[in-house]
Amino acid sequence: MTKTAEPVTLDRLDEAGRAALFTDARTANTFASTPVTDAELTEIWELARWAPTAVNTQPLRVLYVRPEGRDRLITHMNDGNKAKTAAAPAVAVLAHDTQFHEHIPTVLPFRPELKDVYAANDALRTDTGTFNAALQAGYFLLAIRALGLAAGPMGGFNKATLDADYFPDGRFRSILVVNIGHPGENPWFPRLPRLDAADVIAWA
Amino acid sequence: MTKTAEPVTLDRLDEAGRAALFTDARTANTFASTPVTDAELTEIWELARWAPTAVNTQPLRVLYVRPEGRDRLITHMNDGNKAKTAAAPAVAVLAHDTQFHEHIPTVLPFRPELKDVYAANDALRTDTGTFNAALQAGYFLLAIRALGLAAGPMGGFNKATLDADYFPDGRFRSILVVNIGHPGENPWFPRLPRLDAADVIAWA
Repeated sequence: MTKTAEPVTLDRLDEAGRAALFTDARTANTFASTPVTDAELTEIWELARWAPTAVNTQPLRVLYVRPEGRDRLITHMNDGNKAKTAAAPAVAVLAHDTQFHEHIPTVLPFRPELKDVYAANDALRTDTGTFNAALQAGYFLLAIRALGLAAGPMGGFNKATLDADYFPDGRFRSILVVNIGHPGENPWFPRLPRLDAADVIAWA
Repeated sequence: MTKTAEPVTLDRLDEAGRAALFTDARTANTFASTPVTDAELTEIWELARWAPTAVNTQPLRVLYVRPEGRDRLITHMNDGNKAKTAAAPAVAVLAHDTQFHEHIPTVLPFRPELKDVYAANDALRTDTGTFNAALQAGYFLLAIRALGLAAGPMGGFNKATLDADYFPDGRFRSILVVNIGHPGENPWFPRLPRLDAADVIAWA
Protein backbone atom coordinates (compact mmCIF):
# COMPACT_ATOMS: atom_id res chain seq x y z
CA MET A 1 0.00 0.00 0.00
CA THR A 2 1.02 3.57 -0.59
CA LYS A 3 1.45 5.52 2.65
CA THR A 4 -0.73 8.61 2.84
CA ALA A 5 -0.10 10.90 5.80
CA GLU A 6 -3.21 13.03 5.32
CA PRO A 7 -6.81 12.04 4.61
CA VAL A 8 -7.48 12.10 0.88
CA THR A 9 -10.13 14.55 -0.25
CA LEU A 10 -11.61 13.90 -3.66
CA ASP A 11 -12.91 16.59 -5.98
CA ARG A 12 -16.51 16.66 -7.01
CA LEU A 13 -17.08 17.09 -10.73
CA ASP A 14 -18.27 20.65 -11.39
CA GLU A 15 -21.69 21.41 -12.86
CA ALA A 16 -20.32 21.72 -16.43
CA GLY A 17 -18.61 18.38 -16.13
CA ARG A 18 -21.70 16.66 -14.78
CA ALA A 19 -23.74 18.18 -17.59
CA ALA A 20 -21.21 17.06 -20.23
CA LEU A 21 -21.15 13.46 -19.06
CA PHE A 22 -24.57 12.83 -17.56
CA THR A 23 -27.32 15.39 -17.19
CA ASP A 24 -27.16 17.27 -20.50
CA ALA A 25 -25.40 14.67 -22.67
CA ARG A 26 -27.47 12.99 -25.35
CA THR A 27 -27.16 10.17 -27.83
CA ALA A 28 -26.35 11.77 -31.20
CA ASN A 29 -28.31 10.67 -34.25
CA THR A 30 -26.65 13.00 -36.77
CA PHE A 31 -23.04 14.15 -37.03
CA ALA A 32 -21.22 17.18 -38.44
CA SER A 33 -18.65 16.49 -41.18
CA THR A 34 -15.80 17.52 -38.83
CA PRO A 35 -13.40 14.56 -38.78
CA VAL A 36 -12.42 12.68 -35.66
CA THR A 37 -8.69 11.95 -35.71
CA ASP A 38 -6.99 8.66 -34.91
CA ALA A 39 -5.34 10.48 -32.01
CA GLU A 40 -8.74 11.42 -30.57
CA LEU A 41 -9.97 7.85 -30.98
CA THR A 42 -6.91 6.50 -29.20
CA GLU A 43 -7.38 9.09 -26.45
CA ILE A 44 -10.90 7.75 -25.76
CA TRP A 45 -9.37 4.41 -24.88
CA GLU A 46 -6.56 6.01 -22.92
CA LEU A 47 -9.14 7.62 -20.63
CA ALA A 48 -11.54 4.70 -20.40
CA ARG A 49 -8.88 2.13 -19.60
CA TRP A 50 -8.18 3.52 -16.12
CA ALA A 51 -11.61 2.66 -14.74
CA PRO A 52 -11.78 -0.60 -12.79
CA THR A 53 -12.47 -4.18 -13.89
CA ALA A 54 -12.60 -7.42 -11.91
CA VAL A 55 -9.04 -8.48 -11.00
CA ASN A 56 -7.93 -5.98 -13.66
CA THR A 57 -9.02 -8.29 -16.48
CA GLN A 58 -9.84 -5.51 -19.02
CA PRO A 59 -11.66 -7.74 -21.57
CA LEU A 60 -12.91 -4.89 -23.82
CA ARG A 61 -11.46 -4.59 -27.32
CA VAL A 62 -12.07 -1.79 -29.83
CA LEU A 63 -12.17 -2.01 -33.61
CA TYR A 64 -12.29 1.45 -35.19
CA VAL A 65 -13.81 1.40 -38.66
CA ARG A 66 -12.55 4.28 -40.81
CA PRO A 67 -14.81 5.99 -43.39
CA GLU A 68 -13.11 4.14 -46.28
CA GLY A 69 -13.95 0.81 -44.66
CA ARG A 70 -17.48 1.73 -43.68
CA ASP A 71 -19.42 -0.06 -46.45
CA ARG A 72 -18.25 -3.40 -45.12
CA LEU A 73 -19.55 -2.59 -41.64
CA ILE A 74 -22.86 -1.21 -42.88
CA THR A 75 -23.86 -4.56 -44.37
CA HIS A 76 -24.12 -5.86 -40.80
CA MET A 77 -26.17 -2.97 -39.38
CA ASN A 78 -29.95 -3.05 -39.07
CA ASP A 79 -31.68 -0.96 -41.72
CA GLY A 80 -32.60 1.78 -39.25
CA ASN A 81 -28.92 2.23 -38.34
CA LYS A 82 -27.27 2.07 -41.79
CA ALA A 83 -27.55 5.75 -42.73
CA LYS A 84 -26.17 7.12 -39.48
CA THR A 85 -23.38 4.54 -39.42
CA ALA A 86 -22.44 5.68 -42.93
CA ALA A 87 -22.49 9.35 -41.95
CA ALA A 88 -20.57 9.15 -38.66
CA PRO A 89 -16.98 10.47 -38.81
CA ALA A 90 -15.82 7.50 -36.74
CA VAL A 91 -17.31 4.20 -35.69
CA ALA A 92 -16.13 1.84 -32.95
CA VAL A 93 -17.06 -1.81 -32.79
CA LEU A 94 -16.75 -2.77 -29.12
CA ALA A 95 -15.98 -6.42 -28.54
CA HIS A 96 -15.31 -8.88 -25.76
CA ASP A 97 -12.02 -10.79 -25.89
CA THR A 98 -12.98 -14.34 -24.90
CA GLN A 99 -9.28 -15.07 -24.27
CA PHE A 100 -8.66 -12.04 -22.05
CA HIS A 101 -6.99 -14.30 -19.50
CA GLU A 102 -3.91 -14.61 -21.72
CA HIS A 103 -2.97 -11.09 -20.55
CA ILE A 104 -3.26 -11.90 -16.84
CA PRO A 105 0.50 -12.32 -16.22
CA THR A 106 0.87 -8.75 -17.54
CA VAL A 107 -2.11 -7.08 -15.90
CA LEU A 108 -2.05 -8.96 -12.59
CA PRO A 109 1.65 -9.71 -12.11
CA PHE A 110 1.30 -10.87 -8.48
CA ARG A 111 -1.28 -13.54 -9.39
CA PRO A 112 -0.23 -14.94 -12.79
CA GLU A 113 -1.76 -18.31 -11.89
CA LEU A 114 -5.25 -16.82 -12.36
CA LYS A 115 -4.60 -17.22 -16.08
CA ASP A 116 -4.85 -20.97 -15.62
CA VAL A 117 -7.91 -20.71 -13.38
CA TYR A 118 -9.75 -18.87 -16.16
CA ALA A 119 -8.37 -21.18 -18.83
CA ALA A 120 -9.80 -24.20 -16.99
CA ASN A 121 -13.23 -22.72 -16.25
CA ASP A 122 -15.23 -21.71 -19.32
CA ALA A 123 -18.28 -20.58 -17.36
CA LEU A 124 -16.23 -18.32 -15.07
CA ARG A 125 -14.27 -16.93 -18.02
CA THR A 126 -17.43 -16.20 -20.01
CA ASP A 127 -19.18 -14.57 -17.05
CA THR A 128 -16.17 -12.43 -16.12
CA GLY A 129 -15.49 -11.40 -19.70
CA THR A 130 -19.10 -10.63 -20.56
CA PHE A 131 -19.76 -8.56 -17.46
CA ASN A 132 -16.51 -6.63 -17.43
CA ALA A 133 -16.52 -5.87 -21.16
CA ALA A 134 -20.00 -4.37 -20.75
CA LEU A 135 -18.83 -2.42 -17.70
CA GLN A 136 -15.94 -1.07 -19.79
CA ALA A 137 -18.36 -0.21 -22.62
CA GLY A 138 -20.08 2.08 -20.11
CA TYR A 139 -16.75 3.71 -19.29
CA PHE A 140 -15.98 4.01 -23.01
CA LEU A 141 -19.23 5.86 -23.78
CA LEU A 142 -18.58 8.35 -20.98
CA ALA A 143 -14.96 8.77 -22.09
CA ILE A 144 -16.20 9.78 -25.56
CA ARG A 145 -18.30 12.47 -23.91
CA ALA A 146 -15.38 13.50 -21.68
CA LEU A 147 -13.47 14.41 -24.83
CA GLY A 148 -16.20 16.73 -26.11
CA LEU A 149 -17.50 14.22 -28.64
CA ALA A 150 -20.97 12.75 -29.05
CA ALA A 151 -21.63 9.01 -28.92
CA GLY A 152 -24.32 7.10 -30.75
CA PRO A 153 -24.38 3.56 -29.31
CA MET A 154 -26.30 0.98 -31.34
CA GLY A 155 -27.26 -2.57 -30.45
CA GLY A 156 -29.12 -2.97 -33.74
CA PHE A 157 -26.73 -5.04 -35.88
CA ASN A 158 -26.22 -8.67 -36.79
CA LYS A 159 -23.64 -9.96 -34.32
CA ALA A 160 -23.30 -13.31 -36.08
CA THR A 161 -22.44 -11.88 -39.50
CA LEU A 162 -20.32 -9.04 -38.10
CA ASP A 163 -18.27 -11.44 -35.98
CA ALA A 164 -17.87 -13.92 -38.85
CA ASP A 165 -16.65 -11.10 -41.08
CA TYR A 166 -14.32 -9.17 -38.76
CA PHE A 167 -13.41 -11.80 -36.14
CA PRO A 168 -13.37 -15.07 -38.11
CA ASP A 169 -11.23 -16.97 -35.59
CA GLY A 170 -13.97 -16.55 -32.98
CA ARG A 171 -11.80 -14.94 -30.30
CA PHE A 172 -13.64 -11.59 -30.21
CA ARG A 173 -17.40 -11.17 -29.86
CA SER A 174 -19.02 -7.85 -30.74
CA ILE A 175 -21.16 -6.25 -28.04
CA LEU A 176 -21.95 -2.71 -29.26
CA VAL A 177 -21.36 -0.44 -32.26
CA VAL A 178 -20.79 3.23 -31.43
CA ASN A 179 -20.94 6.19 -33.80
CA ILE A 180 -18.59 8.97 -32.74
CA GLY A 181 -18.36 12.57 -33.87
CA HIS A 182 -19.46 16.13 -33.36
CA PRO A 183 -23.24 16.61 -33.38
CA GLY A 184 -24.80 17.56 -36.72
CA GLU A 185 -28.15 19.12 -37.58
CA ASN A 186 -31.05 18.20 -35.33
CA PRO A 187 -28.86 15.66 -33.55
CA TRP A 188 -31.12 14.74 -30.65
CA PHE A 189 -34.41 12.92 -30.39
CA PRO A 190 -36.69 14.11 -27.57
CA ARG A 191 -35.33 12.84 -24.30
CA LEU A 192 -36.99 9.68 -23.07
CA PRO A 193 -38.14 9.33 -19.45
CA ARG A 194 -35.92 7.76 -16.84
CA LEU A 195 -37.24 5.54 -14.08
CA ASP A 196 -37.95 7.21 -10.75
CA ALA A 197 -35.74 6.52 -7.76
CA ALA A 198 -38.66 4.65 -6.16
CA ASP A 199 -38.60 2.14 -9.06
CA VAL A 200 -34.86 1.59 -8.88
CA ILE A 201 -33.55 2.13 -5.34
CA ALA A 202 -34.34 0.04 -2.26
CA TRP A 203 -32.85 0.29 1.23
CA ALA A 204 -31.88 -2.46 3.66
CA MET B 1 -36.65 15.86 -33.44
CA THR B 2 -35.75 19.10 -31.76
CA LYS B 3 -34.84 21.86 -34.21
CA THR B 4 -31.38 23.33 -33.64
CA ALA B 5 -30.46 26.32 -35.73
CA GLU B 6 -26.74 26.32 -34.89
CA PRO B 7 -24.23 23.47 -34.79
CA VAL B 8 -23.92 22.07 -31.29
CA THR B 9 -20.50 22.35 -29.68
CA LEU B 10 -19.83 20.04 -26.77
CA ASP B 11 -17.54 20.85 -23.86
CA ARG B 12 -14.52 18.74 -23.17
CA LEU B 13 -14.11 17.69 -19.55
CA ASP B 14 -11.32 19.74 -17.96
CA GLU B 15 -8.15 18.17 -16.62
CA ALA B 16 -9.46 18.06 -13.04
CA GLY B 17 -12.62 16.34 -14.16
CA ARG B 18 -10.75 13.76 -16.22
CA ALA B 19 -8.47 13.11 -13.27
CA ALA B 20 -11.43 12.72 -10.87
CA LEU B 21 -13.23 10.20 -13.06
CA PHE B 22 -10.50 8.39 -14.96
CA THR B 23 -6.80 9.13 -14.79
CA ASP B 24 -6.27 9.74 -11.06
CA ALA B 25 -9.30 7.92 -9.64
CA ARG B 26 -8.60 4.70 -7.75
CA THR B 27 -10.55 1.87 -6.20
CA ALA B 28 -10.68 2.56 -2.45
CA ASN B 29 -9.84 -0.22 -0.03
CA THR B 30 -10.26 1.77 3.19
CA PHE B 31 -12.78 4.47 4.07
CA ALA B 32 -12.91 7.42 6.46
CA SER B 33 -15.67 7.38 9.08
CA THR B 34 -17.38 10.36 7.40
CA PRO B 35 -20.94 9.22 6.69
CA VAL B 36 -22.49 9.16 3.24
CA THR B 37 -26.04 10.49 3.39
CA ASP B 38 -29.12 8.95 1.81
CA ALA B 39 -29.34 12.14 -0.27
CA GLU B 40 -25.84 11.55 -1.65
CA LEU B 41 -26.66 7.94 -2.43
CA THR B 42 -29.81 8.96 -4.25
CA GLU B 43 -27.85 11.60 -6.15
CA ILE B 44 -25.49 8.92 -7.50
CA TRP B 45 -28.43 7.28 -9.20
CA GLU B 46 -29.84 10.61 -10.35
CA LEU B 47 -26.61 11.24 -12.26
CA ALA B 48 -26.06 7.73 -13.56
CA ARG B 49 -29.59 7.27 -14.85
CA TRP B 50 -29.18 9.78 -17.71
CA ALA B 51 -26.57 7.73 -19.57
CA PRO B 52 -27.96 5.60 -22.40
CA THR B 53 -29.31 2.05 -22.48
CA ALA B 54 -30.70 -0.04 -25.33
CA VAL B 55 -34.18 1.20 -26.20
CA ASN B 56 -34.08 3.00 -22.84
CA THR B 57 -34.58 -0.25 -20.93
CA GLN B 58 -32.65 0.78 -17.76
CA PRO B 59 -32.48 -2.68 -16.15
CA LEU B 60 -30.12 -1.72 -13.27
CA ARG B 61 -31.51 -1.75 -9.73
CA VAL B 62 -29.75 -0.55 -6.57
CA LEU B 63 -30.10 -1.91 -3.04
CA TYR B 64 -28.35 0.35 -0.52
CA VAL B 65 -27.36 -1.50 2.63
CA ARG B 66 -27.13 0.81 5.64
CA PRO B 67 -24.55 0.26 8.40
CA GLU B 68 -27.19 -1.20 10.74
CA GLY B 69 -28.05 -3.84 8.16
CA ARG B 70 -24.48 -4.63 7.19
CA ASP B 71 -24.00 -7.88 9.14
CA ARG B 72 -26.61 -9.59 6.98
CA LEU B 73 -24.78 -8.58 3.80
CA ILE B 74 -21.35 -9.54 5.10
CA THR B 75 -22.36 -13.19 5.45
CA HIS B 76 -22.51 -13.31 1.63
CA MET B 77 -19.15 -11.63 0.99
CA ASN B 78 -15.94 -13.54 0.33
CA ASP B 79 -13.61 -13.54 3.34
CA GLY B 80 -11.21 -11.07 1.71
CA ASN B 81 -14.03 -8.54 1.29
CA LYS B 82 -15.81 -8.85 4.67
CA ALA B 83 -13.76 -6.31 6.63
CA LYS B 84 -13.93 -3.54 4.07
CA THR B 85 -17.65 -4.16 3.47
CA ALA B 86 -18.16 -3.80 7.23
CA ALA B 87 -16.14 -0.57 7.37
CA ALA B 88 -17.61 1.23 4.35
CA PRO B 89 -19.99 4.09 5.20
CA ALA B 90 -22.34 2.93 2.45
CA VAL B 91 -22.68 -0.18 0.33
CA ALA B 92 -24.68 -0.66 -2.86
CA VAL B 93 -25.75 -4.04 -4.19
CA LEU B 94 -26.21 -3.55 -7.92
CA ALA B 95 -28.69 -5.92 -9.50
CA HIS B 96 -30.30 -6.71 -12.83
CA ASP B 97 -34.09 -6.59 -12.99
CA THR B 98 -35.03 -9.65 -15.05
CA GLN B 99 -38.50 -8.15 -15.54
CA PHE B 100 -37.29 -4.75 -16.71
CA HIS B 101 -39.67 -4.94 -19.67
CA GLU B 102 -42.64 -4.25 -17.39
CA HIS B 103 -41.52 -0.59 -17.38
CA ILE B 104 -41.39 -0.29 -21.18
CA PRO B 105 -44.75 1.48 -21.57
CA THR B 106 -43.35 4.17 -19.22
CA VAL B 107 -39.80 4.45 -20.54
CA LEU B 108 -40.54 3.94 -24.25
CA PRO B 109 -44.04 5.40 -24.60
CA PHE B 110 -44.03 5.36 -28.41
CA ARG B 111 -43.32 1.60 -28.59
CA PRO B 112 -45.19 0.02 -25.67
CA GLU B 113 -45.56 -3.22 -27.65
CA LEU B 114 -41.85 -3.95 -27.06
CA LYS B 115 -42.93 -5.03 -23.58
CA ASP B 116 -44.62 -8.05 -25.15
CA VAL B 117 -41.69 -8.74 -27.47
CA TYR B 118 -39.38 -9.05 -24.45
CA ALA B 119 -42.00 -10.99 -22.46
CA ALA B 120 -42.18 -13.60 -25.23
CA ASN B 121 -38.42 -13.97 -25.80
CA ASP B 122 -36.47 -15.10 -22.74
CA ALA B 123 -33.09 -15.16 -24.52
CA LEU B 124 -33.49 -11.62 -25.86
CA ARG B 125 -34.70 -10.38 -22.48
CA THR B 126 -31.80 -12.00 -20.63
CA ASP B 127 -29.21 -10.71 -23.11
CA THR B 128 -30.58 -7.17 -23.11
CA GLY B 129 -30.95 -7.05 -19.34
CA THR B 130 -27.55 -8.55 -18.61
CA PHE B 131 -25.64 -6.31 -20.99
CA ASN B 132 -27.41 -3.07 -20.17
CA ALA B 133 -27.34 -3.57 -16.39
CA ALA B 134 -23.55 -4.03 -16.64
CA LEU B 135 -23.28 -0.94 -18.87
CA GLN B 136 -25.22 1.00 -16.23
CA ALA B 137 -22.97 -0.40 -13.49
CA GLY B 138 -20.10 1.31 -15.35
CA TYR B 139 -22.02 4.58 -15.36
CA PHE B 140 -22.85 4.11 -11.67
CA LEU B 141 -19.19 3.69 -10.65
CA LEU B 142 -18.21 6.86 -12.53
CA ALA B 143 -21.18 8.74 -11.03
CA ILE B 144 -19.90 7.86 -7.54
CA ARG B 145 -16.59 9.45 -8.50
CA ALA B 146 -18.33 12.45 -10.06
CA LEU B 147 -19.79 13.22 -6.62
CA GLY B 148 -16.36 13.30 -4.97
CA LEU B 149 -16.76 9.86 -3.41
CA ALA B 150 -14.60 6.77 -3.76
CA ALA B 151 -15.96 3.47 -5.04
CA GLY B 152 -14.80 -0.01 -4.09
CA PRO B 153 -16.46 -2.45 -6.52
CA MET B 154 -16.33 -6.12 -5.53
CA GLY B 155 -17.26 -9.20 -7.50
CA GLY B 156 -16.16 -11.47 -4.65
CA PHE B 157 -19.43 -12.53 -3.03
CA ASN B 158 -21.82 -15.45 -3.20
CA LYS B 159 -24.48 -14.44 -5.70
CA ALA B 160 -26.65 -17.46 -5.00
CA THR B 161 -26.95 -16.89 -1.25
CA LEU B 162 -27.16 -13.10 -1.56
CA ASP B 163 -29.97 -13.34 -4.10
CA ALA B 164 -31.83 -15.97 -2.08
CA ASP B 165 -31.60 -13.73 0.98
CA TYR B 166 -32.39 -10.30 -0.45
CA PHE B 167 -34.29 -11.17 -3.64
CA PRO B 168 -36.19 -14.35 -2.75
CA ASP B 169 -38.79 -14.04 -5.51
CA GLY B 170 -36.01 -14.34 -8.11
CA ARG B 171 -36.81 -11.13 -9.99
CA PHE B 172 -33.51 -9.37 -9.23
CA ARG B 173 -30.06 -10.87 -9.76
CA SER B 174 -27.02 -9.29 -8.09
CA ILE B 175 -24.16 -8.30 -10.36
CA LEU B 176 -21.76 -6.22 -8.21
CA VAL B 177 -21.35 -4.98 -4.64
CA VAL B 178 -19.87 -1.50 -4.29
CA ASN B 179 -18.41 0.10 -1.17
CA ILE B 180 -18.90 3.87 -1.16
CA GLY B 181 -17.32 6.54 1.01
CA HIS B 182 -14.51 8.99 1.48
CA PRO B 183 -11.04 7.43 1.32
CA GLY B 184 -9.49 6.39 4.63
CA GLU B 185 -5.90 5.67 5.63
CA ASN B 186 -3.70 4.09 2.97
CA PRO B 187 -6.73 3.72 0.73
CA TRP B 188 -5.04 2.67 -2.51
CA PHE B 189 -3.15 -0.40 -3.58
CA PRO B 190 -0.35 0.20 -6.11
CA ARG B 191 -1.90 0.86 -9.47
CA LEU B 192 -2.01 -2.18 -11.73
CA PRO B 193 -0.91 -1.97 -15.35
CA ARG B 194 -3.38 -1.32 -18.12
CA LEU B 195 -3.16 -2.98 -21.51
CA ASP B 196 -1.43 -1.02 -24.25
CA ALA B 197 -3.40 0.46 -27.11
CA ALA B 198 -1.77 -2.09 -29.43
CA ASP B 199 -3.34 -4.92 -27.41
CA VAL B 200 -6.79 -3.40 -27.42
CA ILE B 201 -7.33 -1.23 -30.52
CA ALA B 202 -7.50 -2.41 -34.13
CA TRP B 203 -8.32 -0.40 -37.25
CA ALA B 204 -10.37 -1.38 -40.30
